[in-house]
Amino acid sequence: MITAHAVVYQSHGDPKDVLFTQKYQIDDENLKENQVLVKTLASPINPSDINQIQGVYPSKPDFTDKFDSSKKLAPTGNEGLFQVLKIGSNVENFKVGDWVIPKSVNSGTWQTHQLGTANDFIKLPNPKQSEEKGKTGLSLNQGATISVNPPTAYLMLTHYVKFNKNDYFIQNGGNSAVGKYASQFGKLLGINSISVIRDRPNLQETIDKLENLGATHVITEDQNESKEFGSTIKNWKGTGKIKLALNCVGGKSSTGIARKLDPNGLMLTYGGMSMKPVTIPTSLHIFKNFTSTGFWVTELLKNNPELKIKTLNQIVEYYENEQLKDSPSNEVKFDESQDLASLYIKGIEDSKNGKQLIVY
Amino acid sequence: MITAHAVVYQSHGDPKDVLFTQKYQIDDENLKENQVLVKTLASPINPSDINQIQGVYPSKPDFTDKFDSSKKLAPTGNEGLFQVLKIGSNVENFKVGDWVIPKSVNSGTWQTHQLGTANDFIKLPNPKQSEEKGKTGLSLNQGATISVNPPTAYLMLTHYVKFNKNDYFIQNGGNSAVGKYASQFGKLLGINSISVIRDRPNLQETIDKLENLGATHVITEDQNESKEFGSTIKNWKGTGKIKLALNCVGGKSSTGIARKLDPNGLMLTYGGMSMKPVTIPTSLHIFKNFTSTGFWVTELLKNNPELKIKTLNQIVEYYENEQLKDSPSNEVKFDESQDLASLYIKGIEDSKNGKQLIVY
Repeated sequence: MITAHAVVYQSHGDPKDVLFTQKYQIDDENLKENQVLVKTLASPINPSDINQIQGVYPSKPDFTDKFDSSKKLAPTGNEGLFQVLKIGSNVENFKVGDWVIPKSVNSGTWQTHQLGTANDFIKLPNPKQSEEKGKTGLSLNQGATISVNPPTAYLMLTHYVKFNKNDYFIQNGGNSAVGKYASQFGKLLGINSISVIRDRPNLQETIDKLENLGATHVITEDQNESKEFGSTIKNWKGTGKIKLALNCVGGKSSTGIARKLDPNGLMLTYGGMSMKPVTIPTSLHIFKNFTSTGFWVTELLKNNPELKIKTLNQIVEYYENEQLKDSPSNEVKFDESQDLASLYIKGIEDSKNGKQLIVY
Repeated sequence: MITAHAVVYQSHGDPKDVLFTQKYQIDDENLKENQVLVKTLASPINPSDINQIQGVYPSKPDFTDKFDSSKKLAPTGNEGLFQVLKIGSNVENFKVGDWVIPKSVNSGTWQTHQLGTANDFIKLPNPKQSEEKGKTGLSLNQGATISVNPPTAYLMLTHYVKFNKNDYFIQNGGNSAVGKYASQFGKLLGINSISVIRDRPNLQETIDKLENLGATHVITEDQNESKEFGSTIKNWKGTGKIKLALNCVGGKSSTGIARKLDPNGLMLTYGGMSMKPVTIPTSLHIFKNFTSTGFWVTELLKNNPELKIKTLNQIVEYYENEQLKDSPSNEVKFDESQDLASLYIKGIEDSKNGKQLIVY
């Protein structure tokens, strides 16, 4: 018997009020033939995890009695990295020691263990397996944060628009996690980029870092909103076209990047950091045939499991070849003497200073 | 020799400052084998004609020396109805007396005559030809205003979305010319509609008129913006889905109709009467996979000449069967003693009271 610790809630609300640790027993001696028992290596805190607990996120976990026979509880956390502890007699696609990530959302990654079936997980190479191929092994952070931000950036660049040589995409939130992945993928895929970032005291330092990472050009929100600056961008792009805009800000910033697009351009909105709506001049729609739509990696990949595998494999390959830098997290170590829910509640508070990763 | 009168301009500006009448000679005795000479029966004043003269419309006519050998002048007017006066020896698709409309924009319809080729015109049935088929003939207003508003409404409903039984479209500007055509086509095509109109003193009268014309439901802008009113709309639609929104207003009104759409909905923007941008909540894009794009009949049909013919034929059929009511115009008669440009300049001023049609 294993005593698993899970962070759960019985009703939606402020995480600090509703989250608690539920300990429950997993019978690891009598696995069914298709079952897989994993232990958690690390799981991050994403903004959508918090919104889910608050009850304001459209994708919601089921309340289930698997954690406690007397009441229905919902699991927490959607992204995470596990290691296989034991497998049932019929499991062929995994072996003990393999690194795996959950195939779907809402399975609960803020817990010490998970008992699932062979169909619930996707295999990643563990560091030993990578080394055997002569490659660099994935870090815990890379494995635990591979399911949301890197595929969001990669799929927005590859799933919608055909880029030719010299073409561009433009994005706001250029210094965000997704923004940095997008700049890197742009460089790897041969797509030029213009990243818009907010003005800041150490502006040139940030610009240098982003250009070093792969951004072709980095501009400020003031430049994004300036009509005069348009001619500079025209010079940059030459015969290329700006075909795609990635928007995670909204408001004036979304108007600015939409205006930069060539005719028949597409803007994908995947976030709304300014809390202001996407704002599109009528003339762009009518006279430039501009289209604005949304991107939600959860929904896209739910309906395309093969695309998910293909995308993850590509990202793993970039990591193993050291062609891609992950977005760093603040790593916090859990040990069994601690209350797991308290650790995540503190992590949620600390998230305003950067992404938090709980390491087991 | 025929002396044609054309309304022209030498440089963009306020119509009352830049428009003038240019008389020029057409040699009607020596038509080339493929030429067609037509006289104008009627041409309307559209808002885009005015914007074109001002130089603020993306589609612009060429400045040409055909009106005056000494200076380059641009023609005015894009929509109009002509009657064939003479044809060249090789012209087979037209005969004298036929009604025709211009195949493309920017040919100049604010003039008494046009000399073109067989490829420049599209034939409509003249009243005598309709009567011979036992049908009702088109009026001058129907023929002269058939190229812009009716195809805009018809194509937005038929070119983008597949509607099933019980499905809906929603539109703002429900009392506009395009709005009324859309309600009528909705009824003819079996698509339910919700038309949003501004509140007004004679509200119920306007609602009755629009419902009588074919609108399934008519609501006010206040109802469009109200969250509570959403449940009424849910009751109306039952198992049907609201799949398409037609936006000619922008601002809050566009947000309101976008919110009414079921997941994967599309909004087509074809106008911006409020002068405010299209405004889209981020969550609609991300979580409802909502798409916003534009519609411009000129651009769509420029690239699809067959679609233009097919669409016009359908609209003509509806008119001939008296299944479709045109949007009335204020008809102003021209005679050769008048200055043609002055008549259009007065018509532009009078356009604020409704559409003006100059009848020759």
